[in-house]
Amino acid sequence: MAKVCIGIDLGGTFIKFALLDEEMSMRGSAQVPTPADAGPDSVIETMVSGAAELLDREGISAGNVVGVGIGSPGPLDLDAGVVIGMPNISGFVNIPLRDRIGDGLGIPAVLENDASVAALGEYLCGSGKGMDVMVMLTLGTGIGGGMVIAGRLARGAHGIGAEAGHMIVEPDGEPCPCGQRGCLERYASASALARYARRLIEQDRRKSSLADLLGRKGDLDAVDVNEARRAGDALAAEVWDRSIRYLAVGCVSIARLLDPDLIVLGGGLAKAGDDLLGPLRRHFSRLNWTIDEQKTALALASLGNDAGVVGAAGAAWKRFGNCAEH
Amino acid sequence: MAKVCIGIDLGGTFIKFALLDEEMSMRGSAQVPTPADAGPDSVIETMVSGAAELLDREGISAGNVVGVGIGSPGPLDLDAGVVIGMPNISGFVNIPLRDRIGDGLGIPAVLENDASVAALGEYLCGSGKGMDVMVMLTLGTGIGGGMVIAGRLARGAHGIGAEAGHMIVEPDGEPCPCGQRGCLERYASASALARYARRLIEQDRRKSSLADLLGRKGDLDAVDVNEARRAGDALAAEVWDRSIRYLAVGCVSIARLLDPDLIVLGGGLAKAGDDLLGPLRRHFSRLNWTIDEQKTALALASLGNDAGVVGAAGAAWKRFGNCAEH
Repeated sequence: MAKVCIGIDLGGTFIKFALLDEEMSMRGSAQVPTPADAGPDSVIETMVSGAAELLDREGISAGNVVGVGIGSPGPLDLDAGVVIGMPNISGFVNIPLRDRIGDGLGIPAVLENDASVAALGEYLCGSGKGMDVMVMLTLGTGIGGGMVIAGRLARGAHGIGAEAGHMIVEPDGEPCPCGQRGCLERYASASALARYARRLIEQDRRKSSLADLLGRKGDLDAVDVNEARRAGDALAAEVWDRSIRYLAVGCVSIARLLDPDLIVLGGGLAKAGDDLLGPLRRHFSRLNWTIDEQKTALALASLGNDAGVVGAAGAAWKRFGNCAEH
Repeated sequence: MAKVCIGIDLGGTFIKFALLDEEMSMRGSAQVPTPADAGPDSVIETMVSGAAELLDREGISAGNVVGVGIGSPGPLDLDAGVVIGMPNISGFVNIPLRDRIGDGLGIPAVLENDASVAALGEYLCGSGKGMDVMVMLTLGTGIGGGMVIAGRLARGAHGIGAEAGHMIVEPDGEPCPCGQRGCLERYASASALARYARRLIEQDRRKSSLADLLGRKGDLDAVDVNEARRAGDALAAEVWDRSIRYLAVGCVSIARLLDPDLIVLGGGLAKAGDDLLGPLRRHFSRLNWTIDEQKTALALASLGNDAGVVGAAGAAWKRFGNCAEH
C-alpha cells in the first residue's frame, strides 16, 4: 500500500484536500465550502472530517498516512503552528491550527503560509519542477510570494519573508495598508490594475470604453481592463502596460537578489496567460542588466488552483518523509 | 595539533591570508601587496607562497590543513572555480584559480565571490554571529552583497545572486554600467553619494562649502561630504540624507523578501559609523511596514577589512570540515 501525505488548503471560500504519494502524484482530492460564518471550531471540524472522508473514500488506512500539511492565510506563527489572524474568517485569532488538525486526525501536522505552499506545489509538480531556486508570485487582490531555495521553502528568519508584494518599487509612491509606500502590490496586483483604470476615468476624466462598463457595474476588474485593451482601448492598454512594467521592475530586483532559475506567476491576473507573460517578458528583458545573459526565466503557474493543496501535502512530505531529497 | 583552514582574500591592492581553527578563531594572518601589473601567474604564485609561508611561520604542517578558501572579485564561475574576469588585474581572464591554488598548496580549495566571503566572515565571527538569516551590503565604489541563509552562503541558481546593489530602487532612474536603470548602487554607494554632490555643485550651480574643496582637489569623496555635513553644510546634508534614504528603501525590500535577522553594513561608507547607521535606522523604521513589529536589525560590520579573509577560511571549513554545523 502506497504511503501518502494529506494536503489541506484553507481558503476564505473553499477548503481543498488532496492526497500525494511519495512520487508526488495526486491520489485523490476533494473540496468543500468553508463554513466561514460558523467560526473557527466549525472550520477546524470541517477540515478534519473532510480529510478523514477523503482517506476513507480512497481506502487508505491511518497507518499509511505519513503526515498532513496545512496551507493557511496569515499572519501565522510557523514555529508554534498558530494562526495569528485571518481576514476572511471571523474569530480565527491565535488558533493553534497545526495541533488541532494533527490531534484531530492523529497524524503529524505542519502549518505553512498559503503563498508558500502554492510555490512548493509549483516546484514539486508544476512549472518549477527540477529547479534549484524558484520564486512564485500570486497576483490577486494583493501579491503573495513564495520562495524555494535548494529544494526547500525559504521564509526568512521570522517566517515573514518572501513578501514580494511589499518590495518597494516606487519610493514615496502609493500608500499601502501595510504602512509602507510604493509597494509592488499597489501597482501590479489584479486589484491595483483595475483601481488605476478607475482612477484615470473617475478622477482624471480620461476617455475610455471602460467608462460605460464602470457606470453599469459600479466597479472594474482586471479582466475588464484586458478585454478593453484587446478591443483597442488606449487607456486600458496604458493601464495594463504600466502594471506589467512595475511587475517587471519587481522581477528584476528579485532576479538580482535571489538569482532564481524561474519566477512563476499565478493568481487571478495570471489567467490572462500570454497577455500577461508576453509583455512581462519584454519589459523584464528590457529592464534587465546586460553584463550577463538573462538567466532567470518567467513562466505561468501550471497547477492553477491546485498548487496550494499539492504544496501543502508536499510540505508534509518534506517535514515527515524519510527520503532526503524531499 | 589544531586543524586549520586557510583563507586568502585576493584584492586589487593587497592579498590577505589568515588561518582559522575549527572554533573559528584566527591563528595568524599576513598581508602582501598584489603584484597586479605582473600578470596572473605572478599573482597566483604570490598567493601560494604567501599561504605556505604563513603555515611555516605558525608551525602548522600540511596534514593539519583541512582546506583553503579563496575570496576573489568577479565575475566568477563558482562551480568550475574559475575567475572569468577581474577589473583590477590585467590578464586575469578565465583563470582556474581554485585548482591553481589547490594544486599549488596540495590541499582542497574552494573559490567564492569576495562579497560573499565578507558576509560569511561577519556571520561566523562578526556582527552576524548566531543569526539564522543575514545579509551584508558592502558600500564602496559599488554596492556588493552577500547572503547567509540557514548558516550557508546563498548565491542563487547561477551564482549571480545577492547583487543587492543592482536591485532597482528608482524606476527609469540613473543609468548603471550594468545596463539597468535606477540601481541601488547608483544612489547609495560611497561613489554615488560623492558624484551626486559634485553634480549639484557643477551642473546645478548649488552653493556649498564643498565647491571650494572640489575646485582644489578636482573631485569629492563620501568622507568630504560627511565632513561638510557635520560642519553644517546644507547641500552636504541633503546629499547624505538622500543616499541613506535610498539605502533604506533597498533595506526594506531586502527585509520583505529575505526577512533577515540582520543587515550588516560594511565597506568604505560604513566607516562613517553612527553618521551612517543613525539616519539609516530612522529612515528604515519610517519606511518599514507597520502591520508587524520591525524584526530585521541593522548593524555595522565588526571585522573591518578582515571579514573577507576570515570568511574565505570559513568557506573552506564549510566545504571541507566534517562538522555538520559548519
